[in-house]
Amino acid sequence: MNIQEVVAELKEERGGRIVMMVADGLGGLPLTPGGPTELEAAQTPNLDRLAQRGVCGLMTPIKPGITPGSGPGHLGLFGYDPLRYVIGRGVLEAAGIGFAVGPDDVAIRCNFCTLDAEGKITDRRAGRIPSEESAALVATLRAIRIPGVEIFVEPVKEHRFVVVFRGAGLGANVGDTDPQVVGKPPLDPVPHDEASRRTAEIAKEFVAQARKILAAQSKANGLTMRGFAKRPHLPGYREAYGLKAAAVAVYPMYKGLAGLVGMDLLGKPATLEEEIEVLEKAWKETDYNFFFVHFKYTDSRGEDGDFDAKVKMIEAFDAVFPRVEALRPDVLIVTGDHSTPAKMKSHSWHPVPTLLVADTCRPDTAEAFSEKACLQGGLGHFEAVYLMPLALAHAGRLAKFGA
Amino acid sequence: MNIQEVVAELKEERGGRIVMMVADGLGGLPLTPGGPTELEAAQTPNLDRLAQRGVCGLMTPIKPGITPGSGPGHLGLFGYDPLRYVIGRGVLEAAGIGFAVGPDDVAIRCNFCTLDAEGKITDRRAGRIPSEESAALVATLRAIRIPGVEIFVEPVKEHRFVVVFRGAGLGANVGDTDPQVVGKPPLDPVPHDEASRRTAEIAKEFVAQARKILAAQSKANGLTMRGFAKRPHLPGYREAYGLKAAAVAVYPMYKGLAGLVGMDLLGKPATLEEEIEVLEKAWKETDYNFFFVHFKYTDSRGEDGDFDAKVKMIEAFDAVFPRVEALRPDVLIVTGDHSTPAKMKSHSWHPVPTLLVADTCRPDTAEAFSEKACLQGGLGHFEAVYLMPLALAHAGRLAKFGA
Repeated sequence: MNIQEVVAELKEERGGRIVMMVADGLGGLPLTPGGPTELEAAQTPNLDRLAQRGVCGLMTPIKPGITPGSGPGHLGLFGYDPLRYVIGRGVLEAAGIGFAVGPDDVAIRCNFCTLDAEGKITDRRAGRIPSEESAALVATLRAIRIPGVEIFVEPVKEHRFVVVFRGAGLGANVGDTDPQVVGKPPLDPVPHDEASRRTAEIAKEFVAQARKILAAQSKANGLTMRGFAKRPHLPGYREAYGLKAAAVAVYPMYKGLAGLVGMDLLGKPATLEEEIEVLEKAWKETDYNFFFVHFKYTDSRGEDGDFDAKVKMIEAFDAVFPRVEALRPDVLIVTGDHSTPAKMKSHSWHPVPTLLVADTCRPDTAEAFSEKACLQGGLGHFEAVYLMPLALAHAGRLAKFGA
Repeated sequence: MNIQEVVAELKEERGGRIVMMVADGLGGLPLTPGGPTELEAAQTPNLDRLAQRGVCGLMTPIKPGITPGSGPGHLGLFGYDPLRYVIGRGVLEAAGIGFAVGPDDVAIRCNFCTLDAEGKITDRRAGRIPSEESAALVATLRAIRIPGVEIFVEPVKEHRFVVVFRGAGLGANVGDTDPQVVGKPPLDPVPHDEASRRTAEIAKEFVAQARKILAAQSKANGLTMRGFAKRPHLPGYREAYGLKAAAVAVYPMYKGLAGLVGMDLLGKPATLEEEIEVLEKAWKETDYNFFFVHFKYTDSRGEDGDFDAKVKMIEAFDAVFPRVEALRPDVLIVTGDHSTPAKMKSHSWHPVPTLLVADTCRPDTAEAFSEKACLQGGLGHFEAVYLMPLALAHAGRLAKFGA
């Protein structure tokens, strides 16, 4: 048995309520030797107080040295082994616009591109046409009809859009059609297994019809397809944990990821303040027993390489905790899906400072919430997939294993 | 290769002698925020001195968040992956009374119950009849004969007893006969695979004969069967580690568990003092090179929720260490099979303070034996299955892996 099977067997349908507060890209690095990380530079009186009450540790998102994308990062947080459950690019792109990919769907990332008279690509991104223009073109592609399959075409941003083929038995093992260089025509979609032959035929027919519709366009007169994917077969939160779970997020990507594991999406918050309002309202008026709250901007400012701005975002995140504590969750978790050091301007593999507060915590010596303090924490170094089992245990939701 | 296979390959039939002192349920929690755990509240001058000499750490019995029963807890301590080797309920119950379950045995937990004139259960525990009365009834059931199978019937406590069917090829995949509610008759034993058909027939015949024998009883005139199980196929200590191992324990359960991994059971000690006497004698007079010494009452007082009494038990445990040290074992381990915080009145998932003393220890900064001090320990956070490999390594009993 693996940990997920054990937890599914031991889960109980009663126990406490859990709040998981995720600051995307929380972990950081000093800009200069001997300096503080973003979290250490930030004034975080609330998180420091929680660190004293609870238990801290450093969470490895996937395995040491492995930098996660948002998909695997969140799967790990949600307790699903990211090396076992792979979210294909097409499904992730669809999740990113909040499109609920179903079990019979093949989702594909598409780019508008510019083709010359010979059909060779002259611009792989169609001059990065504006999103509005692109969305209007996407709408024209909805006229495409192919027998036996339902087709969805959804805009993403600039030249990017998503195509979803819905039909029983469609495989997703189809090669990309983007040749990755200019001067060559798009490749034909090539199936790599029997179940994907029909999918490849549909894709080819889709491209043919799209070319006719787009023929008069000067920039976006062609398209390429990448990342054919089906949603992973994973048990949802109810089945895996016996939890009725809800997600509070601003960005479609994180709503999409939460949706993949069976969380309900609450409200339409546009700011962290509004997210907390949604949480407060649902806490009082619903019987959800797990809440995932996602805060994006710690990651965004890290990606920008703006150390000071990330510090400010961490402080903004800290400031909402009195309101979260006032709800008196039985288990409160604060973590990130990965580190995004401003110094690196990217996601990184560094472990993520994590804290858990519950009445059943064994106190450690961490007196603040920081990478350094978490090194001394009672949770030690642990892999993300163990965060949910720990949350359930502290919520009194896991029975004893064996007698 | 997994760790167990590696160790089996590298084991050497020579090296030092190992003593593993297990205080059941050793780990704890503070009763109040900022307070000490039971181990931190206890005066443990001997264990503190050993912690300074040796190396400390925090041992996760199964995986983070998973609370072990006694069976999986000890399997882990003994180095067997508890998620791989599952001890069925029947075998554990048999182990609990010191019945040595053999490879051809199917062990079953049985309850006496009360049936009405229609054969429906009116009391699932037969009024919890006294153990003496129950044992006398169990003796009458030994008259049952079924061709081709040897039958053992052994009392446990009150209405509980164990039945063992011994016969080649008997499967144990048979459903429980306890309907879990009153007002219904016991279920028929239903086989869930081909190998278990004969077992189910035997069980049915056993129940039929038992009903005749018990017919005149007013309370215990029926029985239910649960947890049909065979012993797990696991390599014993000799095969796994090249060790000649002995167990010193007061309670039958722990003798039974030690027996399952091929340890010999020494003496009939009734107290911790007597256990140490048994250890001393065997140390001098035998060539066992591994000793498992089990102390029960730290767990018992934790289960009672009696913090102060658990503290006293830890102090009693501490007091015997000068005698253990006087034997000069090459490797001395002090640990528990899990935590049993008095605050929770139950087993818990919290990691277990652990120390190892040997000439090959790399000293750490732990100056006392406590949960907090172990956080700084050189063993770090580690899973129970690695304790035996560490013990063998420090005893000079593991060869180099690869050239």
